[in-house]
Amino acid sequence: MKTTHARLADGREILYFDETDDAVRVLDDPRDMPPVATNAEVRYDALLDEWVAVASHRQTRTFLPQAQDCPLCPSRDGRRTEIPSPDYEVVVFENRFPSFAMGAPALPPRPADTPGTDPDADVGLRRRAGWGRCEVVCFTSDHDSAFAALTPERVRLVMEAWVARTQALSMLPHVMQVFPFENRGEAIGVTLHHPHGQIYGYPFVTPRTRVMLESARRYRQRTFRNLFADVVAAERAAGIRVVAENEHWTAFVPAAARWPLEVHVYPRRQVPDLPALDEAERGAFGPLYLEVLRRLDGLYGRPVPYMSAWHQAPVRADRDLAYLHLELFSPQRAADRLKHLAGSEAAMGVFINDVHPEDAAARLREVIL
Amino acid sequence: MKTTHARLADGREILYFDETDDAVRVLDDPRDMPPVATNAEVRYDALLDEWVAVASHRQTRTFLPQAQDCPLCPSRDGRRTEIPSPDYEVVVFENRFPSFAMGAPALPPRPADTPGTDPDADVGLRRRAGWGRCEVVCFTSDHDSAFAALTPERVRLVMEAWVARTQALSMLPHVMQVFPFENRGEAIGVTLHHPHGQIYGYPFVTPRTRVMLESARRYRQRTFRNLFADVVAAERAAGIRVVAENEHWTAFVPAAARWPLEVHVYPRRQVPDLPALDEAERGAFGPLYLEVLRRLDGLYGRPVPYMSAWHQAPVRADRDLAYLHLELFSPQRAADRLKHLAGSEAAMGVFINDVHPEDAAARLREVIL
Repeated sequence: MKTTHARLADGREILYFDETDDAVRVLDDPRDMPPVATNAEVRYDALLDEWVAVASHRQTRTFLPQAQDCPLCPSRDGRRTEIPSPDYEVVVFENRFPSFAMGAPALPPRPADTPGTDPDADVGLRRRAGWGRCEVVCFTSDHDSAFAALTPERVRLVMEAWVARTQALSMLPHVMQVFPFENRGEAIGVTLHHPHGQIYGYPFVTPRTRVMLESARRYRQRTFRNLFADVVAAERAAGIRVVAENEHWTAFVPAAARWPLEVHVYPRRQVPDLPALDEAERGAFGPLYLEVLRRLDGLYGRPVPYMSAWHQAPVRADRDLAYLHLELFSPQRAADRLKHLAGSEAAMGVFINDVHPEDAAARLREVIL
Repeated sequence: MKTTHARLADGREILYFDETDDAVRVLDDPRDMPPVATNAEVRYDALLDEWVAVASHRQTRTFLPQAQDCPLCPSRDGRRTEIPSPDYEVVVFENRFPSFAMGAPALPPRPADTPGTDPDADVGLRRRAGWGRCEVVCFTSDHDSAFAALTPERVRLVMEAWVARTQALSMLPHVMQVFPFENRGEAIGVTLHHPHGQIYGYPFVTPRTRVMLESARRYRQRTFRNLFADVVAAERAAGIRVVAENEHWTAFVPAAARWPLEVHVYPRRQVPDLPALDEAERGAFGPLYLEVLRRLDGLYGRPVPYMSAWHQAPVRADRDLAYLHLELFSPQRAADRLKHLAGSEAAMGVFINDVHPEDAAARLREVIL
C-alpha cells in the first residue's frame, strides 16, 4: 500500500491511498482558487448542555451537480476537479466547505451582545471558534459505483484511509473525537452522488457519545463489566436479531432500533477505535459489511438511502469504556415510503419505529445474495 | 365556551370545543368499525438510556389522501369521516393509529428471546406495553386553511383544547408527560394536509426534557436560579435575536439554534404547563404566535414546513424546575433548499446550522406583515 500526500491549489491537504507501492499520482493542481475562508463557530446550548456548529459559509456549497461537473471525479480530458490526478483508488482531501476548520477565526469570549450579568448566572451567548477538521473520502473514481459494489480489497484500502486519518486527526490540537461516516441517497440530503464519505474531527465529544459513555460508566460501576460488550454478547446469545457475522465481526439489528432499517456492526474484541483493530480484524470487516449493504439493497431490489456512522472513543478520554462500532440506518420504511422525523423524534427525542426489529432482521437475513 | 364529549363507532373518545355555549354537534357515528387493535410497545435502549416506541400497526395509516377523502373534514353530503358532525370549530379525538395507547397489551417482563444472564448485567431486550395516549386536534373544519390563518379567537379556543387535554391526559395512569405539537408540510412527512396537530401522552419523561431538567437542576444548585428564566432574561436584554413580544410572551431565535429557522416562545412568567397559564396569558398567546407564523410564511412568500412543539413539565416531577415554552423550527434553509439531518446530526447529535441565528432573527423581524 502507498500513501501520497499533496496540497490542492488553495492549500488544502489531499492524500491518495493506493493498493500497490508503485502507484504514481499527478499532484500539481493548476486551478486558480482563493484560500478557503471559513467563519465556522460553535455555540453552547445551556439548556441541552451541547455545542451547536454554525457555518454560514456552507450555504453556497455544491448542490447536486450534473455528472459531467462532479467535483469528486478525477481530473480528465481538460476538466479540473477537486482531485488533480487523472485516476485514483481511494483519496481523502479537506472539504472546501467545512463545518469545522483549524483556520476558523478566534472569537472573543464575551461578545458585545451579551450583557454582563452575574458570572455565576451567565446563560447568554457563549461561542468559540469552530476549530476542527472536515475531510472528504472518495471510495472509488467510478462516479456510478457505490460502497456496496466495492471489492473487499477496496474496502480494506478504505479501512486504511479511515485508520490513517483517525490517527492524523487525533493528533490535531482541539480535536476531541474523530467521526468517519457516509450518507448515501438524495432522499436523505446527499448533495453529491459520487461514492464518498466524510470524516469529521470535532472539537468536543459528541452528545451521542457522551450519553453512551455515561451509561457505560454507570454500568461498570454497578457490574465491573463493559456495557457495549454485554450488549453484543446478549445479541449473539439471543440470535434473533443477528443479520450476519464472521470470525471477527457481528452485525445485528439493535433490540431498541430507532429506524425501520438499522444495523449495528461490532468487532468481536473490544477496541476503542479503528487504529486499534489488528490486521485480521481490518481484513474481515469488508466481507461482513459488504454483505450487510447488499442485504439492505436487496430488500427492495434497488439501493436504499442510508447513513453509516463509525462510533469511536474520544481521542483523550474514556478509551476503556468505549467500544468501536458502526451504526448503519435507513429511513426506508416500505418500498415507496420514507420515515420522516416528526414532532416526537425531532422535538422530544422519542423515536417511534413502525417496524419490529426482529422482523427487520428476519427480512434482511432472507435476502438472497 | 362549550365542550361536547362523545365516542366514535369503535369506542374512541371525541371532544368538540366550541366558542359559544349553544353549539350543537351531531354525536352519532354510524360507521361500522372494528375496535382499535394496537400492539404498541416501548423498548429500553441501554446504551442511550432511552425508551423507543415500536408500533408496527401504524404502517397501514392513512397517507396523503385526496382532499375529498380527508378523514379530518366534517361528515357532510353522505361522506363519513373521523368527525361525525357536519361542522366543528376545534375537535380532538383519539388517533386510530396510535404510537401509545392505554389498550396496548401487557408484555411479559422477560421474553423468551432474552437469555437469563447475571441480573446485574442484564442488557438484553427490555420491553413494556406502550401505554399512553395519542390524540388528533383539528384546528378548523376548513381543509385548505392553516394555523397561521386562524383568528386570535380561534387560537384561544385551540389553547383551551390544549389545556383541557393536558389536564385530562395528566390524570391517566402511566402518562408522565403531555406533548401537544403540530407538524406542517409534506416536506417534513406530514401525511394529512388538513390543519391539525397532535397530543401525545408519553409513559416516560422524554429524553429532551430529561436533559433540559438536568441542566436546570445543576444550574439551580449552583446559582439558586431558574435556568430557563435566565435564558429568557438574557435574550430579552440582548434583544438581537428577539423576533416579537407582547406583555405576556417573548419569541426569540435561540443563540444556539439548531435549525435554519427556529423560534422559541416563552411566557413572561415561569409556569410548568399550559393549565397553569392565567386568563391574560392564554389570551395573549394567539396574537404573538400568529405574528411569528406569519413572519415565517412571509420569508419566502409561501408556507414553510415547520414543527411546533409545546415543552411542558413532567406530570409528577420537577414542576418547579421546568418552564413551559413552545419550540418552533423549520428545515427551510433557502427558498428552494431544505436542511436534511445528515450523519453529524442523525448519528452523533451534533447540529450544523448554515444560518446565523442573528441573521434569521433579523430576516424574520424585517418581514412586512
